[in-house]
Amino acid sequence: MPVSYSDRIAGLRARMKVTGTDLVAIGPSSQMVWLAGLSPHGDERPVMLLVTQGYAGFLMPALNVDSSRKHTDLPMFAWSDAEGPQAALDELLKACAIDRSNVGVVLDETMRADFALLLLDALPGARRSFTGETVSFLRARKDQDEYRVLKAGAIINDRAMQAGFEALRPGVTELEVAEAIRDAFKSQGAAPLFTSVCFGANGAFPHHHTGGTALKAGEAVLLDIGGRFQDYSSDMTRVAHSGGPGTAFQRIHGIVEAAVDAALAAARPGAPASAVDKAARDVIAAAGYGDHFVHRTGHGLGLDTHEPPYITATEETVLEEGMVFSIEPGIYLPGKFGMRLEEIVILRKDGPEILSELTRAPFLF
Amino acid sequence: MPVSYSDRIAGLRARMKVTGTDLVAIGPSSQMVWLAGLSPHGDERPVMLLVTQGYAGFLMPALNVDSSRKHTDLPMFAWSDAEGPQAALDELLKACAIDRSNVGVVLDETMRADFALLLLDALPGARRSFTGETVSFLRARKDQDEYRVLKAGAIINDRAMQAGFEALRPGVTELEVAEAIRDAFKSQGAAPLFTSVCFGANGAFPHHHTGGTALKAGEAVLLDIGGRFQDYSSDMTRVAHSGGPGTAFQRIHGIVEAAVDAALAAARPGAPASAVDKAARDVIAAAGYGDHFVHRTGHGLGLDTHEPPYITATEETVLEEGMVFSIEPGIYLPGKFGMRLEEIVILRKDGPEILSELTRAPFLF
Repeated sequence: MPVSYSDRIAGLRARMKVTGTDLVAIGPSSQMVWLAGLSPHGDERPVMLLVTQGYAGFLMPALNVDSSRKHTDLPMFAWSDAEGPQAALDELLKACAIDRSNVGVVLDETMRADFALLLLDALPGARRSFTGETVSFLRARKDQDEYRVLKAGAIINDRAMQAGFEALRPGVTELEVAEAIRDAFKSQGAAPLFTSVCFGANGAFPHHHTGGTALKAGEAVLLDIGGRFQDYSSDMTRVAHSGGPGTAFQRIHGIVEAAVDAALAAARPGAPASAVDKAARDVIAAAGYGDHFVHRTGHGLGLDTHEPPYITATEETVLEEGMVFSIEPGIYLPGKFGMRLEEIVILRKDGPEILSELTRAPFLF
Repeated sequence: MPVSYSDRIAGLRARMKVTGTDLVAIGPSSQMVWLAGLSPHGDERPVMLLVTQGYAGFLMPALNVDSSRKHTDLPMFAWSDAEGPQAALDELLKACAIDRSNVGVVLDETMRADFALLLLDALPGARRSFTGETVSFLRARKDQDEYRVLKAGAIINDRAMQAGFEALRPGVTELEVAEAIRDAFKSQGAAPLFTSVCFGANGAFPHHHTGGTALKAGEAVLLDIGGRFQDYSSDMTRVAHSGGPGTAFQRIHGIVEAAVDAALAAARPGAPASAVDKAARDVIAAAGYGDHFVHRTGHGLGLDTHEPPYITATEETVLEEGMVFSIEPGIYLPGKFGMRLEEIVILRKDGPEILSELTRAPFLF
């Protein structure tokens, strides 16, 4: 995907002006990939990219300078294992030409605590915030190139989900189904990121660890899977049922399906994210299952599987065209099963476009 | 491996007394795995384990409480996506019964910046440090069960290295050799962690990204590989050469081999870590290649591939029996080749025991 990193840094500087930010500090993360095309070796050696209106440069361990140089022309302030990072950071901050005692700094919230505190200790009295209104604000609005990659990734995910469906039979283990899904991602040129396979009551744990549980005849199945294609994530949840779903499963499926539809209808440019959450939550609460919908309705998706905008009861971010996020209400019935249906959408002028082309009806086997 | 987490927390409390620490805060990381046997879903939702002399409990996203409960009996202060973590953190801090305005806090340095600052903002005036003298101090001293797992992992790594050697032939790509190594880890029940395969001049980048480079006849090869076996890491570097090594390669190999021997001889209980670094560095400097040994001599190894003790020019940590660390001097000749030989050792009363059983002589093919 052709990307102009200088355009992205220019866009960041415009947001810095709007938000009163003097300095942005980014760790080795998807934030750095988005802003500078660079994901240096991530270990305990401090690495950061500092950006001001007039300057941008890296703090970089000496042994990573050469391999990082292939990806960026920005200056690097190198430090060796013997020296430690302090002197190089001081030089970099001098080059940034900021007033160290009075700086509005935006910190990459995913940075290691020791990296962040190394910087904050060098900036006494800093007014700090995280990337929500700067880098994350910009990343949340996907461009046409990003849309194309996300759409292609969603179709790959559809096929991986179908491979998971095809692996379902009584006696198969969760791990075996996960392996079939992983193989399907790989054979399509994508890297599997997560393959949550939940049989029966395991589905009632929203973050169940896929394991050796074997499928019993007549059980429900929940599959939440995602892969990485050309640096971008996919994410989708579907359900299946062995031997014909019972009325309870069908009824709960219908409620969650109605919650998805309500959230899709509420997702319009100009609406706060909380309105989408409320639309889904109201449907589930009205059906009497409000206490069983134990998580937010959705999250943004891009280079990260979870990124802004978050679709929660209290998130007032105004949705805009080009934002990509999940809609994934769920109902979890301990000891019985879990039901979650998850779509990834891109917000268009007149509403959400769903990236997946796979039905949300349960796969029956 | 049978582990008593209550013993580990008791050991931590003893170290807290010695170090004047009132509160230890651990994020979802290997620190948490070591201390509580728990590695909760790692995303943007704040998770932490707080330990005081009288209390230990988790801040936990509500949707992970049930799946985490399988691994620990410690109390959990749950928060929902709608509420956010602040109120639950306040309750947890109340249960900890500390003086919030005057607390010596140890922070897991690998914790996300936003998790760490959420806690620090709730503890005005905290005296903070990282885990070096508490959790990391304890983790650095391996017990006999940990030794057994590390030794078994090292032998698996030896076999994976040999699989890499066997895949070498002119025309093969770095990625193909990496795949053979990865398969060898997997077939032995280990998970490949890193497979750095460097052909020719690529070896002169200490953190080269393994890629599509094809091997030419007469080239040097550097392999730095590691896997995870029963939660513990392995790590080893060896070299190989196609078509008979030239005198330059043989001479540089001899220097680095002598540096390894010098470091092994210097590694004794009671010696500072810096003495081991100096022993290796002096050999390489005396041979005229001091400027080409661009990194520290070693790092600890355990649940993490890099953990204390670090073996650097300035690290005054006193080495003790049971510490496990790498000895890996190197010489990097830009445009030509890189030479690094890496052993993992456990320090015994009378010196280091090397875990690998594979010769450091170059593999010739």
